[in-house]
Amino acid sequence: MDTGRFSKPLELKDIRIQDDFWKREQELVRKEVIPYQWNALNDNVPGAAPSFCMRNFKAAAKLMREKKENAKFIEPRYTYRGFNILPEKGKEPEDNKFYGFVFQDSDFSKWIEAVGYCLATNPDSELEKTADEAIDIVCAAQAENGYLDTYYIIGGMDRIFTNLRDHHELYCFGHLLEGAIAYYQATGKDKLLQAAKRYADFIASKFGPEEGKIHGYPGHEIAEMALCRLYELTSEKRYLELAKYFIDERGKQPYIFDEQEKERAQYTGEDYTPNNDPKRYRYHQAHIPVREQDEAVGHAVRAVYLYSGMADVARLTGDDELFKACERIWNNIVEKKLYITGGIGGTHLGEAFSHNYDLPNDLAYSESCAAIGLAFFARRMLEIEPKGTYGDVMEMALYNTVLAGMALDGKSFFYVNPLEVDPEDCIQDERKHHVKPVRQKWFGCACCPPNIARTVASLGNYAYTVSEDCLYTHLYVGSSFTATLGGREIAFKMESGFPWNGSATMHVSTNENNAAETAALASLTEETKKAGNIENTSKTEDMGTTVTRFSLSFRIPGWCGGKYRLLIDGKELSAPGTDSIKISEKDGYLYLASDWQGEYEIHLEFETKIRALFSNPLVKENTGKVAFTRGPVTYCMEAADNGSDLWEIAVLPDELDSSKTTQGEIEGVPVMFIDTPAVRIHSKSTSALYADYSAAETEKITARLVPYFAWANRGEGQMRVWIPAHNA
Amino acid sequence: MDTGRFSKPLELKDIRIQDDFWKREQELVRKEVIPYQWNALNDNVPGAAPSFCMRNFKAAAKLMREKKENAKFIEPRYTYRGFNILPEKGKEPEDNKFYGFVFQDSDFSKWIEAVGYCLATNPDSELEKTADEAIDIVCAAQAENGYLDTYYIIGGMDRIFTNLRDHHELYCFGHLLEGAIAYYQATGKDKLLQAAKRYADFIASKFGPEEGKIHGYPGHEIAEMALCRLYELTSEKRYLELAKYFIDERGKQPYIFDEQEKERAQYTGEDYTPNNDPKRYRYHQAHIPVREQDEAVGHAVRAVYLYSGMADVARLTGDDELFKACERIWNNIVEKKLYITGGIGGTHLGEAFSHNYDLPNDLAYSESCAAIGLAFFARRMLEIEPKGTYGDVMEMALYNTVLAGMALDGKSFFYVNPLEVDPEDCIQDERKHHVKPVRQKWFGCACCPPNIARTVASLGNYAYTVSEDCLYTHLYVGSSFTATLGGREIAFKMESGFPWNGSATMHVSTNENNAAETAALASLTEETKKAGNIENTSKTEDMGTTVTRFSLSFRIPGWCGGKYRLLIDGKELSAPGTDSIKISEKDGYLYLASDWQGEYEIHLEFETKIRALFSNPLVKENTGKVAFTRGPVTYCMEAADNGSDLWEIAVLPDELDSSKTTQGEIEGVPVMFIDTPAVRIHSKSTSALYADYSAAETEKITARLVPYFAWANRGEGQMRVWIPAHNA
Repeated sequence: MDTGRFSKPLELKDIRIQDDFWKREQELVRKEVIPYQWNALNDNVPGAAPSFCMRNFKAAAKLMREKKENAKFIEPRYTYRGFNILPEKGKEPEDNKFYGFVFQDSDFSKWIEAVGYCLATNPDSELEKTADEAIDIVCAAQAENGYLDTYYIIGGMDRIFTNLRDHHELYCFGHLLEGAIAYYQATGKDKLLQAAKRYADFIASKFGPEEGKIHGYPGHEIAEMALCRLYELTSEKRYLELAKYFIDERGKQPYIFDEQEKERAQYTGEDYTPNNDPKRYRYHQAHIPVREQDEAVGHAVRAVYLYSGMADVARLTGDDELFKACERIWNNIVEKKLYITGGIGGTHLGEAFSHNYDLPNDLAYSESCAAIGLAFFARRMLEIEPKGTYGDVMEMALYNTVLAGMALDGKSFFYVNPLEVDPEDCIQDERKHHVKPVRQKWFGCACCPPNIARTVASLGNYAYTVSEDCLYTHLYVGSSFTATLGGREIAFKMESGFPWNGSATMHVSTNENNAAETAALASLTEETKKAGNIENTSKTEDMGTTVTRFSLSFRIPGWCGGKYRLLIDGKELSAPGTDSIKISEKDGYLYLASDWQGEYEIHLEFETKIRALFSNPLVKENTGKVAFTRGPVTYCMEAADNGSDLWEIAVLPDELDSSKTTQGEIEGVPVMFIDTPAVRIHSKSTSALYADYSAAETEKITARLVPYFAWANRGEGQMRVWIPAHNA
Repeated sequence: MDTGRFSKPLELKDIRIQDDFWKREQELVRKEVIPYQWNALNDNVPGAAPSFCMRNFKAAAKLMREKKENAKFIEPRYTYRGFNILPEKGKEPEDNKFYGFVFQDSDFSKWIEAVGYCLATNPDSELEKTADEAIDIVCAAQAENGYLDTYYIIGGMDRIFTNLRDHHELYCFGHLLEGAIAYYQATGKDKLLQAAKRYADFIASKFGPEEGKIHGYPGHEIAEMALCRLYELTSEKRYLELAKYFIDERGKQPYIFDEQEKERAQYTGEDYTPNNDPKRYRYHQAHIPVREQDEAVGHAVRAVYLYSGMADVARLTGDDELFKACERIWNNIVEKKLYITGGIGGTHLGEAFSHNYDLPNDLAYSESCAAIGLAFFARRMLEIEPKGTYGDVMEMALYNTVLAGMALDGKSFFYVNPLEVDPEDCIQDERKHHVKPVRQKWFGCACCPPNIARTVASLGNYAYTVSEDCLYTHLYVGSSFTATLGGREIAFKMESGFPWNGSATMHVSTNENNAAETAALASLTEETKKAGNIENTSKTEDMGTTVTRFSLSFRIPGWCGGKYRLLIDGKELSAPGTDSIKISEKDGYLYLASDWQGEYEIHLEFETKIRALFSNPLVKENTGKVAFTRGPVTYCMEAADNGSDLWEIAVLPDELDSSKTTQGEIEGVPVMFIDTPAVRIHSKSTSALYADYSAAETEKITARLVPYFAWANRGEGQMRVWIPAHNA
């Protein structure tokens, strides 16, 4: 690892998103998702299964007031292995009982995290008041020793941490920490942060290599990256040490999960039959120590959360061996386990990564949360080393699967993101029961909607990272922000046509009066946004201008095939640049190094032609098929545009005009369509299932493709991303 | 229905199979499968899970001797929903307890059926003695009232027929009847037949439309066709009436399965929660009355057994409405649900037909027994109406999936017959746990091996059917036989090059001394077998020759595309024939009508070129892929010939020389290979998962294809039937 290439995200409060495309999504989160979610946490959504989340905190808080901290644990009756506890049929929930999934506390934490991100740039006193009241309830539930998980506070705290594999205490803790930090960073209020820290301290007192402590680690990862974030906020080493401990303890034999199961058998009275399947903890990425791993396996969300934590610890401790494991696993995902939509997780069995090259389209799992976790992992790898692969995949995940997870009106969500759907199959074929043809309102296990909310709301954290002397642009998102470079605060404004065109203009000002400068930059006219309409604006030659040495780095998106133009103040430039601005490329990033002084306008134009892609032949699913992308957007074909019997359409990629798109909109949201030459194969003209290989009866048509993120917003219908290529 | 076109199979004892190809298979059944199976029934196969079959009959027989007929039923503990009862872990089975699957009695019945078919043409006193002793045991288990199912005889007979849906009594009864008839027809011994008839009479006394009787039907069909067979043997109407009752009662509401579940809840004390899913009895083809059905649904073996029974009843009662239902369902299978290997059953969930056009290759179920059942259904449709579609599909099922079910050495078996296998996937992918890359010795649920045995042993029943004045040749199988036509016994000998070439020569003799004639025909030299080497043999002008008016009908296989030659006594003929022999075609059958006198040699040459086939585009699995067939044989590609990474091979169907085959052998068995132009796409030369659509780096190779029935006889390796076609 080259520590000189390390960089960190900007603080959210320092960045304003002004991007037509993303601002819409963020507004949906603020105006639709967060209020809805608050109602869901409080069981106030008519027709939706109750969450019991805030109810549990209230019950726990009452018990704390009554000092029942040492009550004996009573195992609730689960409805199934998913550990969901429901009231008796037809009865109201009882007082002082825990209900819902064992990880239901995390619903609050994800909500408060999203609230924090929104408040960072959009003050809202009403929302803040609601949040503060919720925090009061949550904090009231905390035990004196710092423990804070309602499942055991309500059930009896003598059994805490006795089922690390299944009971999600450390997962809920990780989310609590993330939420508490986000809220603190946005509002400066530290009540929840102090509670979370006390809980972290309690956990640190219970887990570790020392004798008498639990030699364990989370059954569902996230605490690792959350602890790193707490360390970066507080500089208190013990949090980093605990994160590193969790990572290094994982996969050691004998497995703590086995040991705990054996111990539990003693008090449940159940038979303990050792499970000796060497693959049994692949689901938890705990089959072997993480440093020995080189394949992404098991539950996909758990996996990418772990890898994110590994990357954090590797960076913060300078651990090259751990970083190498991250690289191996990253390469495995990108070369063998990644959907073209930026989704991961080929199998619904364990919501997991399938084996190499197994990327079924119709049976895909590709959970929204897993694509989010992949973006987490990518950004953390970028913080260590700016490389095109990380930025490309992060962009692919965010613009496609993450956005597809939420309806264009922000009111319904996908948990599973298939690449091919026939609504009829979802009804008829039990193997596809996990695939839904339309988004749903809310889920019993509501991980995806709040996860999408917190990710979209914190987009600024993904767009840029900064080191002492370099600003890295990873995503081209219209925004204005300040960053400290070469010891001075510099003002930036990015104007971007992404994702519909590949033009991006960065305005830079090193002038002293940055606050005023930022405001001035923010008011630049809309015209300059348009590609090819860049004019050389005259410099402000005011007195505050000083010279600062730093680099500006821009990701060269993989999809442009290295084809782009660079104009600085209207003048086209390329490597090695000029005497005053050195230009170079490294690992898919463009670097402009200079002694910057005054104002600059750096304009980039990346080629955004339509690409027809095919798969590595080892992806058996995609034989004979192509998929279309344009810029960062992956496309799909829907029945809404092309009629039903989508399966009869084959495209003619040889006849594709890669520059032709059609402006349009879906449900009022502007999008670009691809209208591509295709044929309709008239299968219905023959009843034969099999026929001699020869030209079938075909009709030339134009197939319309729409962005994948916008699919299923016009009712139920067939959809496919990978489309047969017709051999004419 | 045109009763004039009805025909019936020959009796097995009247036909000798002399075909190189099939004789080998029949010998395997006689010498390998039947003895092995007998050991399996008696729990004498080291390493195999015990069957408990004969053990249960012995236990039941002892109880019968002890007159415990009226014992109260005690529900045994199932290990899982499959209704398998095993001894307690680590303990020996207890006396007087039932073990194994609830349908384990049928193992004996399938064995005795196969034994009967073998004895019909291969007397074997040792085997017959073993069979007689087994029959003595089985008959000793029969209750005084005629009931004969060990599960309830051992468990307590007060609960018989209270779980028609799951407990297989009527299924075991059907198999018992089939076995008893086969053994009687082969040996003339009727002890088992009488027992089975008594059981049939008992069932007839319990089931029917009358008040006080059970208004029910089998949860697993087969009794319907078995009862028809008993009716045809005995001419006793009540058996046909019972078959018809079972068929017409099926699917009526309220469902008997629901009613019985409700009743059972009263004595098990369990909660009865009505299941109101309207699809709930699709698995049993009982969701709606059979006459309203037009789609093949549910458990595939159950389904085709039902359809076979429906066809029998339709023919025997002249029920055109029922026949129309059979036709609709047949067409649905052939047009939308049939694998190119003659297999059926696209999903392992319920071992069932999937929805239309859903024919996954790697996840296929395609159970051996289902292909057998499809041949049953086809033959019964042929008995009603000789049509190419029935003969073609019957041939396809028998030559491909049925044979693939058994190893070339007869020692191991496939239950599931995938069209694509990667052994690595079978280990790694839980969704494919049902797919095995190599055949297994025996199965706990051992339906397939004995089912293959009884089908191969009775092949003669599928090759020909006969009406009063027409002999139909459905399969071209080397054989000699007699048939009664125009009131006289006529001798035939078929010489065939099938499946490796399309030539077939039928020798006909109307001479009086048929017995001697048959022997003479049987000794014809091998030379005439060879295509294009037919000589006009001089007629035997002996005194016994008489004139008989009848027709000879030959199936024109669909795969020859109507291209064939007909030579009678060496002279090429076509429709309308000559004054003495009228030639016509109807529904894929060739008809030769004449006043036959003396000896004839009818030679047919069907074009057998290699066909590259593609699928209806609605079969999404097969996009961009072709499959190869030649004559009745479907081919596949194996790693044993083509190296691993089979997925990198794409064929060039445009360059295929459709007449070029290579003679060879697999494990000593002669086969024909197809060596076809192909490319190897070097996916490994790039690590990219997705790349721009363009010519990949390819290497021209010759891919070797082998008959599907012979796959997986050379160890574990990748295999695929549908192969990508390379767009060069």
